[in-house]
Amino acid sequence: MTRRMHLGLFILGTGSHVAGWRYPGAFDSFQDLGQVQAIARTAERGKFDLIFMGDNLYADPAAHPSYTLRLEPLTMLSALATSTSHIGLGATASTTYGDPFSVARAFASLDHISRGRAAWNAVTTANATTAANFGRSHPDHGERYAIAEEFVGVVRGLWDCWDDDAVVADRVSGLYIDPTKVRSLDHDGSYFQVKGPLNIGRSPQGQPVVLQAGGSAPGQRLAARTADVVFSVVQDFEEARRAYAEFKALLPQFGRRAEDVTCLPGVMPVVGRTEREAFDKLATLQSFVSSTNALALLSDRFGTDMSAYDLDGPIPDLALPDSYHSFARVMLAKARREGMTLRDVYNLMAAARGHWVLCGSAQTVADTLQHWFENGAADGFNIMPPFFPEGFEDFVDLVVPILQERGLFRADYEGTTLRDHLGLERPAPRRPG
Amino acid sequence: MTRRMHLGLFILGTGSHVAGWRYPGAFDSFQDLGQVQAIARTAERGKFDLIFMGDNLYADPAAHPSYTLRLEPLTMLSALATSTSHIGLGATASTTYGDPFSVARAFASLDHISRGRAAWNAVTTANATTAANFGRSHPDHGERYAIAEEFVGVVRGLWDCWDDDAVVADRVSGLYIDPTKVRSLDHDGSYFQVKGPLNIGRSPQGQPVVLQAGGSAPGQRLAARTADVVFSVVQDFEEARRAYAEFKALLPQFGRRAEDVTCLPGVMPVVGRTEREAFDKLATLQSFVSSTNALALLSDRFGTDMSAYDLDGPIPDLALPDSYHSFARVMLAKARREGMTLRDVYNLMAAARGHWVLCGSAQTVADTLQHWFENGAADGFNIMPPFFPEGFEDFVDLVVPILQERGLFRADYEGTTLRDHLGLERPAPRRPG
Repeated sequence: MTRRMHLGLFILGTGSHVAGWRYPGAFDSFQDLGQVQAIARTAERGKFDLIFMGDNLYADPAAHPSYTLRLEPLTMLSALATSTSHIGLGATASTTYGDPFSVARAFASLDHISRGRAAWNAVTTANATTAANFGRSHPDHGERYAIAEEFVGVVRGLWDCWDDDAVVADRVSGLYIDPTKVRSLDHDGSYFQVKGPLNIGRSPQGQPVVLQAGGSAPGQRLAARTADVVFSVVQDFEEARRAYAEFKALLPQFGRRAEDVTCLPGVMPVVGRTEREAFDKLATLQSFVSSTNALALLSDRFGTDMSAYDLDGPIPDLALPDSYHSFARVMLAKARREGMTLRDVYNLMAAARGHWVLCGSAQTVADTLQHWFENGAADGFNIMPPFFPEGFEDFVDLVVPILQERGLFRADYEGTTLRDHLGLERPAPRRPG
Repeated sequence: MTRRMHLGLFILGTGSHVAGWRYPGAFDSFQDLGQVQAIARTAERGKFDLIFMGDNLYADPAAHPSYTLRLEPLTMLSALATSTSHIGLGATASTTYGDPFSVARAFASLDHISRGRAAWNAVTTANATTAANFGRSHPDHGERYAIAEEFVGVVRGLWDCWDDDAVVADRVSGLYIDPTKVRSLDHDGSYFQVKGPLNIGRSPQGQPVVLQAGGSAPGQRLAARTADVVFSVVQDFEEARRAYAEFKALLPQFGRRAEDVTCLPGVMPVVGRTEREAFDKLATLQSFVSSTNALALLSDRFGTDMSAYDLDGPIPDLALPDSYHSFARVMLAKARREGMTLRDVYNLMAAARGHWVLCGSAQTVADTLQHWFENGAADGFNIMPPFFPEGFEDFVDLVVPILQERGLFRADYEGTTLRDHLGLERPAPRRPG
């Protein structure tokens, strides 16, 4: 079978650009379900594999509005499940501030509701501010990943408690559940003790799809062991190719094949009918950036207050917190490579929060994505529009048809579940012991 | 204004009767959104105030199937929000096994998604089995209520962090959020430390509606202080009237008026076009009860293993756990009053889980509800159909028109939010300090 690209749509509040909501005609509220429904319909028209909703667990009214105001992901995606029919629905839930029973249950429920389209993005929650909303102390990076490893295992175990045929519902005999086909989990680990079984039956995908985005070494190992789809932060082709190869090389030690995990680098496309039109759009977007929110975003991403540094001086020699954000590492490397000032960095950060900005005509954008896809840098892309709806419609209406024409992307859905779109089999339940 | 009845629909898996799913033509899966959507449409056709989804956080494959298999309430109601337009959407969330930040956020999100129809049923989670799914020990009754008091206060505080006009989204100035209209909560209590603000703006109802069902003395105080709607367990008119009067008398000490809280006793209606038809339906339902699941249900309700007692002997002198379930108290009182055997009790428990069973012609059912409503026993009712869809359609198609004709119940919705239906004002945010 021809290898085909996979496309995810990343939804984050009003869009990934810090000031994208100021673009003429842009949607400016993601607390309005109608706007999100319109975006989801566009993504489905573009035959995307999935919509993916990022999340934070704190509000910072001074920062990127998309970080502070949004619908809660699971309720939002459940509402979208009824106004879409094919597209996958991925939500972030924290392994540091959630509990595995509730997470397993909510995603199983979304999988039932959407008839097999649920995906869970397991995040360890980097931002320490979060702890204050949960009356907790923020575990360090290493411990967060140790917790996450166990958490994901518990969730997957809970999803396997029920056999597909455990619900008998035999009106004649009165047997509703066959008790021999339901198992408790009896997990007793370092961080979690969870008895089970889950109080919801095995879901349409068997196991909802698991997404991961950790860029640090422990993050990569967690992804290699547990994820079906991996998002990554990249800034250029060579780096992306190296990261892709390194990640795929990790898989065999966890008994997995390269094709078991779909790697989707994040990219913010700014698309025009001509190069000129695209660069004008980007310039318009960048004109909306204020130094206040750009600095707040930069400080968040770097985990340190950046307002003390000279904006037009060289990049300071920052001691980053322990593997704080891949964004910081990738961005600082690029800045040093290209001799950027701090102002250059914050402008770039304001545009795509540290992700790759791909600006150009539809032809150029399609060519570049094809080049990455065909030369070992990606299995597809996580599309992060700067704003909605136009910033995304440009991609769907101008770029997707070129990819389809070249046979690089599906012309229509060939299945109904997210596993179908990703070419992943529906797993049989693993029985403990 | 004429006082009008309020009606809630209680949804619990396949229905409130332990074997209702065996009734010919009954829905037998509540993991299928299509069935729940059909029920919600029927409730909206019947102009009900709200649908209310009960919940547990454990599975017991040997017990009532409705206790073990169901969609997760918040995801389910979010999905229903898009296929209904007026009816309120109430979900249970635990104050013992949840956290206030997540609960506040999820219900605010549902309120945005449904445009003002969200309600939270705050429960303390009586069943100790739950603890094993959360790696915790189960707090005793008194502590659960102390936690709940604080939890509800924190949630209400988080809902008040944002003023209605805090989201400015001014494209010209670039001001998205007016920081003077957002406050942190800075709650530092005995059980919770929650900084806030919430990462979602003030929702259409200002405060989603709060439901409560605790029957014990601490439960009644919590309800009197915090709830907008109260569900109760009753078995006869005199008892209901006394409980209603006692509860309304509690309200002034919390600075509230009798009309601030809507009291809805639970009732399972079994409705026929004639008395005979109704009693035949009930007999058919009861013929499906097996002693195994009835005893499991009874044991759950009484918090003790009932299989050791003689079914045809007198009611044993049970030492109930600390105010375990109102069901146990109410049911044991009725059993002693009426000289029932244990078998009688379990048959009654199997029918409606301890709630009042009202069986008769549509005329009789309407007359009885009217009598209760007009004589100080209820502000309306929480309707608990034994099974779906017929067990509920009978009520909507046969009883509701009689209530409407008598001017006891709305002929159509007069507003769009649940607060509108309940006659509750939209509150202004309370500012701390």
